[in-house]
Formats: sequence, structure tokens, C-alpha cells
Amino acid sequence: MSKVLVFGHKNPDTDTITSAIVYAYLKQQLGVDAEAVRLGEVNNETAYALEKFSFEAPRLIGNVAEEAKEVILVDHNERQQSADGIEAVKVTEVIDHHRIANFETSDPLYYRAEPVGCTATILNKMFKENNVEVPSNIAGLMLSAIVSDTLLFKSPTCTEQDVQAGKELAEIAGVNADEYGLAMLKAGADLSDKSLEDLLSLDAKEFTFGDVKAVVAQVNAVDVNDVLNRQDELVSLLNQNIEANNLNLFFFVVTDILNNDSTAVVVGSASEAAAKAFGKELVNNLVDLPGVVSRKKQIVPVLTEGL
Amino acid sequence: MSKVLVFGHKNPDTDTITSAIVYAYLKQQLGVDAEAVRLGEVNNETAYALEKFSFEAPRLIGNVAEEAKEVILVDHNERQQSADGIEAVKVTEVIDHHRIANFETSDPLYYRAEPVGCTATILNKMFKENNVEVPSNIAGLMLSAIVSDTLLFKSPTCTEQDVQAGKELAEIAGVNADEYGLAMLKAGADLSDKSLEDLLSLDAKEFTFGDVKAVVAQVNAVDVNDVLNRQDELVSLLNQNIEANNLNLFFFVVTDILNNDSTAVVVGSASEAAAKAFGKELVNNLVDLPGVVSRKKQIVPVLTEGL
Repeated sequence: MSKVLVFGHKNPDTDTITSAIVYAYLKQQLGVDAEAVRLGEVNNETAYALEKFSFEAPRLIGNVAEEAKEVILVDHNERQQSADGIEAVKVTEVIDHHRIANFETSDPLYYRAEPVGCTATILNKMFKENNVEVPSNIAGLMLSAIVSDTLLFKSPTCTEQDVQAGKELAEIAGVNADEYGLAMLKAGADLSDKSLEDLLSLDAKEFTFGDVKAVVAQVNAVDVNDVLNRQDELVSLLNQNIEANNLNLFFFVVTDILNNDSTAVVVGSASEAAAKAFGKELVNNLVDLPGVVSRKKQIVPVLTEGL
Repeated sequence: MSKVLVFGHKNPDTDTITSAIVYAYLKQQLGVDAEAVRLGEVNNETAYALEKFSFEAPRLIGNVAEEAKEVILVDHNERQQSADGIEAVKVTEVIDHHRIANFETSDPLYYRAEPVGCTATILNKMFKENNVEVPSNIAGLMLSAIVSDTLLFKSPTCTEQDVQAGKELAEIAGVNADEYGLAMLKAGADLSDKSLEDLLSLDAKEFTFGDVKAVVAQVNAVDVNDVLNRQDELVSLLNQNIEANNLNLFFFVVTDILNNDSTAVVVGSASEAAAKAFGKELVNNLVDLPGVVSRKKQIVPVLTEGL
């Protein structure tokens, strides 16, 4: 059997990178020749987690069809978020916690999605189901993913299962979840060394809402003014991006990780309609989103419904 | 919480009907108000299994949006195989063993697909995972589903997991798997009382292969001549069906359950291309398919690839 590649989505976040490493490890323990790879640059938060638990970033790949015949997707399923060349390879497994869309196979496969806050929470179960012990550093990666995706257990996407898994894994990893978690989030939310171009690609995902081709990007910040002070420049950059990629909407969310609120900078022909989906008027390209921290649970469903 | 409906595909077969009953039972044990329903008539094989293990057929429903807000799909996911009105309800779970296509949600969900021969094999695991005991008559239903989908463990879709589950469940149900299984298959393969119209709808599934809108139907027979003797009448009926439903292909498979071979009656503008997908010439609307018994594993992938 040739090697199977395991990877998460483009513009990788901590759950995507660590889940690729963790699931490749589990598959190896089960006798499968699996390699974790990544589709983009590792962000500061993820780099912090990898260093803390002594892992290298997985190998960066381009067109997946030139690399392997079979692949396993973690933390995503939608074609436009996946590797270039994904149509030309066989997806044998998916482990995910997102909605299902733009995904199609010609053969049956192992598909495991659960409505929990983080892919790592599902992976933690799969270690148990397969009677494979979780090593301390692998536990650290899984904890990092859960902290990242649930904003330290505060996001509305966070379930009791995520909290339980986080507790278990912190113990195995030998860290204090709250202390370590906040330090990791802060490492990722330090935007001072980031150009606006960096911010745009940090965690941007493409979606199709009816006829609207959209990108919904999200950055975490300790101080949202780090971003909003540069609003004019940002709007013009978003407009360039819309033109270059034939988008109808760029929905750029800045999330305050200390107060758990967000502000969206919204640009494109569908921007008024997008604001309206949240029952808001678009003022100066801004939409205030108090209490909103989850793209998956609080933004994408509203845009899917409203557009 | 309002009632959640559990159902399988249109033109239900034994796995679809019994898995709806079995999974609704499991959900009830877990405190969920679940009801098994069906989208079409129960076939002879399924009726035999239901009677043997003392179950009534689930309630027949029409448009699902008039019945419930939330649904669980078993044994299918493709929209065109599911209930009318499926777009208007929320799919909270899918338990399936088919390819994934024409399926999209706006929210995360529990999706469990495994590349095994039968939905019941996955359900059998889920009883264990949830520490719920399998009652004897529920075991009988699951065994019936496995026997049906794997043609008594002989189909290439049959995995070691299906064989193991079948053994376990036969023991719990207190029946001899081979004896009971063959009797059940024969009850379903007795086509003597069936009109051609009956045969057409017995187990017909719609697919889209590229631009080709197709129906792939399958009937099991003890004697394939029961069907093939009526070929002229059948071809004209398939042509009517193609016209009425704007199809490009009707691929009607008659499977000899004793010898594990099939013959397809193929009609429509894509019929030559469909035969060619199997490396065959279409002669008199017939394609010989020696060793082919599985629509999922030996027919749909070939048509997906070839069309």
C-alpha cells in the first residue's frame, strides 16, 4: 500500500495542523503508512504549540495529485478549502466537525463528523476506540487544538465533550489548561508583526452562499484596534482581493479574545445583504457582532440563511 | 424537543427499513424521541424479515417537512434518494455506508459513514459504544439487513466486520444465519407475483453521472429468466420511464442470487456509453455482467468513471 497523506484545510489553523499530525500518528500505530502534511504557512499560535510540545511543522505540499493517490482529510471537507488537485485523488477518510458541503466521492469511505468544538475531541475518542495510548506530547497537541477552536472553552461551539477531552488531555500533557491555553492564544493574537496581507490569509475560508461567492476570514486579537486602526487600507486590500478572485463578498472578522466579541469589516456587492443577514445596517463597512466568536456556529449559518 | 424522524431511502430495501427501526430504538434507549418511518412500500424480502421477528412496517410518510423539523438519515445521503421536502428540514445525523454526494448542510452534524457492507454493521457497533444491549428481535433485524446487503456474505461489498457482526447477531437472534438468510433472500427473489412495473420500483435509485441523469435499478432473482423472458415489454416500459422522468439512462440489473452473476437491461441515450464503461458492446439492450452483484461497488463506480 502506498503512503496516505493526512491534511487539514488551506490557511491552516491549530486544529488543522495538529489534527493532521495526531491522526497520522494514530494511523501509523494501526499499521498504516500515513504522513501528515500541510497546505499553507503555520501561524504564530500553532508555531507556539508545536514548539511547546517539540514537534516540527508537517511538510508543505502543493498539488496533492502529484504527491499521493489516497488522502485523509481532517478538520474540513469542502473542496474549495482543500488541496489543489483534490479531485484527482481518492479520499479514504474524513474526520471533521464542520457542516458538509461541496464534497462528493465515487466510492464509500470512512466519514466521521461530530457536532463538537474541535477535531481533536473526536480524535481523542478514536484513540480509545482503537485502544491506542495517547503519548504526552500528542495530548499536548490535542489540547492546543481544543483551546484554539473553543477560545479556551468559551466559544458557543464548545461542548461538554470538548471540556472533558481538554481536562483529560491537559493531565496527560502535564500542563495547566488555562495558563498554557491563554499563553498560546496570546501568541496567536499578537498582530503587531503582521502586515494586513498576512492577516488576510491567516484564517480565510471560501464559501458559496447561494449565488454569492464569499471569503469569511477571522483573526483573533488581544486589541482589535491593532486591526481597525488600519481600516481604510484594509478595505482597499479586501476590494483588490474581491476583484482578483471574482468574489461577491469579503467578510473579515476581528475577534477580541479577551472579551469574546467581534467586529466585521465587510466589503463586496453582497456586503449590505450580509449585514442585513445579521439584522444590521452596514456603517462605514463595519458590522458590530457582540458575543460572536464562532465563524462556524455564529457566522456561516447566518450568511447561509440570509444570502 | 420535538420528535425526530429516522428513515432510509426511497424504494426501501431491507437494510433501509430495518436500520430505521433499529436506530430509532437505539435513540429511544438514549432518551431521544425518535420514530422510524418509511418512504415507500415494503418489499417481499423485508416483509419476510419483519414478520419473522414480529415487527410492523414503519409508518409511510409523504413530504417530510410536513411531519418534522429534524430528521436522521440511515442507509443513504443523496438528496434525490431521500424524502420529498428534505431541503426544508434539518438533518441532525446520518448513518450510512455509501459514497457521499448531493448532500449539503448549513450546520455541523453527526455523520457516520463506514465502508462496510451494511448500515446494520455500523449500528451494531453503536449499541456497544453506547453500552445498550441488543434485544433478540432487534438482532434479527440487523442480521436480516446484513444478509440482504451482502447476499448472504457473498457480495464483494461484504467485509470481515459484516461477517463478524452477522455471526454475533445470529447468535443473539437465535437463528441459523445461512438457513434463515437463504429463506429470506428467496422470499425476496420470488418474482412470480410481480408485474414489471413492480420490479421497476422495487429497488431503483437515481444518480447523476456527469451530465447523465440515470436510474440504476436492481432486482434479485432465483431464475433471471423470470425477468428476461419479458425483455421486450421491459424495454418499452424503461423507455416510457426515461421519457416521463427526463432520464438519459435506465440501467436495470437482474442479479442471480444463486450463481452471483448479473445481466443488465440498458436503455436510454447514454446506454451505449454505459455498456462501454464496462468494456462491453450493447447487444439487444443487454449487458452481461458475470460476477457482478453489487450496485454500489461494481456498478456505480464504473458508471461514475465511464460517463
